[in-house]
Amino acid sequence: MITVDINEAAELLRQHDNILIIMHRSPDGDTIGSAYALCAALRMLGKNADTVCADDIPQKYDYITSKLPHIPFEPQYIVSTDIAGEQLFGEELAHYAAVTDLCIDHHGSNTGFARYGIVDASAGACTQIISKVISALGVTPDKFIADAVFTGISTDTGCFKYSNATAESYRIAADMLDFGADGATINRVMFDTKSRARIELERLVLDSVRFYENDRIAVIFITAAMLAQTGADDGDTEGIAGIPRRIEGVKAGITIKEKESGVYRISLRTTADIDAAAVCRVFDGGGHKAAAGCTLCGDADDVCSRIVAETAKQL
Amino acid sequence: MITVDINEAAELLRQHDNILIIMHRSPDGDTIGSAYALCAALRMLGKNADTVCADDIPQKYDYITSKLPHIPFEPQYIVSTDIAGEQLFGEELAHYAAVTDLCIDHHGSNTGFARYGIVDASAGACTQIISKVISALGVTPDKFIADAVFTGISTDTGCFKYSNATAESYRIAADMLDFGADGATINRVMFDTKSRARIELERLVLDSVRFYENDRIAVIFITAAMLAQTGADDGDTEGIAGIPRRIEGVKAGITIKEKESGVYRISLRTTADIDAAAVCRVFDGGGHKAAAGCTLCGDADDVCSRIVAETAKQL
Repeated sequence: MITVDINEAAELLRQHDNILIIMHRSPDGDTIGSAYALCAALRMLGKNADTVCADDIPQKYDYITSKLPHIPFEPQYIVSTDIAGEQLFGEELAHYAAVTDLCIDHHGSNTGFARYGIVDASAGACTQIISKVISALGVTPDKFIADAVFTGISTDTGCFKYSNATAESYRIAADMLDFGADGATINRVMFDTKSRARIELERLVLDSVRFYENDRIAVIFITAAMLAQTGADDGDTEGIAGIPRRIEGVKAGITIKEKESGVYRISLRTTADIDAAAVCRVFDGGGHKAAAGCTLCGDADDVCSRIVAETAKQL
Repeated sequence: MITVDINEAAELLRQHDNILIIMHRSPDGDTIGSAYALCAALRMLGKNADTVCADDIPQKYDYITSKLPHIPFEPQYIVSTDIAGEQLFGEELAHYAAVTDLCIDHHGSNTGFARYGIVDASAGACTQIISKVISALGVTPDKFIADAVFTGISTDTGCFKYSNATAESYRIAADMLDFGADGATINRVMFDTKSRARIELERLVLDSVRFYENDRIAVIFITAAMLAQTGADDGDTEGIAGIPRRIEGVKAGITIKEKESGVYRISLRTTADIDAAAVCRVFDGGGHKAAAGCTLCGDADDVCSRIVAETAKQL
């Protein structure tokens, strides 16, 4: 991959037309905000541009997706936003990975699958990079672009609660408010609105909480029976893994989610002193220092004992 | 009250020494952040300055209060921060209301009790005004001041979820990060950390949820038995009134909290189309359009029926 800077990325986009922008599978606010903001900016320059994702986009992003209808054209230039590696295109769009012309991303782990790429790991959200590319394209953001860019920053920083929320994240967010973004509403919709199924699920999950090691480890369970009972879908389980670590005094929060009978997906969230990725690597998983995951087989109590024991070694 | 601007307020502070800075009763992050940031700045100028509050400061603000010990001196100049009216000094400090020399506040409803005052209702937090006064004093914020100013912005905007979070709020927050504020940690401690008692209480409260009017009204109960069972104190119930309105589709969230046997404090939180204050005025209560309260006597089911019926009229 040939590394380009903001101006070079803008120049590449300026030189091309019929641009297809690809989001990663299991789309989140940052890949959606990035793709839609860039798409809107390119259309403002008179170009054919569109967005595509292998998976359905969750309904809560309707305020973005409903305002930029798809248009038909033969793609001639392929751009990826917030995609760190080939496997994140999703099965349906996997064939685009090898022919991506320009990759715009903020993951330090980016595999360099594209022809040209701009990867800035210091950006809290990919939309921060997108906002600079849009500026370099000479486009002044309208409310739509401002909302989309703001959405990426808000969602990828956990409403400014993660350490990737830098001064630049706040300044770009401020600029987007000036361009009309409804930041307060976006933060509320993304972080303060829960479906009834989610409320019911949280209730059951809180019923299941177990504490270990003098309350420094908290474990919650999400079982197939809970999902069936509440009617909760995958969207409703988003962020639940953050719940146990939020309990005062808890250093490691473990979420054990039943994938199928005897197969459990483990999410581990830790405070600064515990390396979550190191724990999960023991079970062939991985991730970041404060958030990692792995898959374990067995019965639920046995799975719980094994992950708790390994986590306890780090205390 | 003689209105002054930022530079005039700074000049008044420069001309005086032995400055006592008063916080409002039931102190929150904004009055605490304002008083402590200003106090630290004045001490950096070599002045005697201290802070005082009629009520105890909650433990979660220890990262501010523990770093600026009190010092003894005879107060000669009285400053209030984030205090909208005389009654908010609290009983113990009520005598200061009539002799306040300088009032720094962001409540449009400020009663003008002081000799000089700077009241900027466009500021999302009082610490935004404080940060400008500190700058006009020629003081460069250190990490302590930056954390205190950031805390005010974060807490008074509900972690940037209320509409008072303006572009300026974000820009001053960004400046504070540059001066060393640990914004992500402050946001997590203020909004993402829950005591075990609080977690237990939320579980019981969610068990109690009732829906009315096609799920547009949600009611939760906080009973004395729940508080006893969980060991939760008043601090643990903070913000619980926000829970029912967060449920998708709910237009009015009602919290019924048992004060004593047969006496219930009602908190009503509504979306834009329902006037909470109008509902609560019917029961001799009051408040704002989206958040109001009143007190009702009777048995719990009866109290619930009456407040739900009155709220339903507004749907």
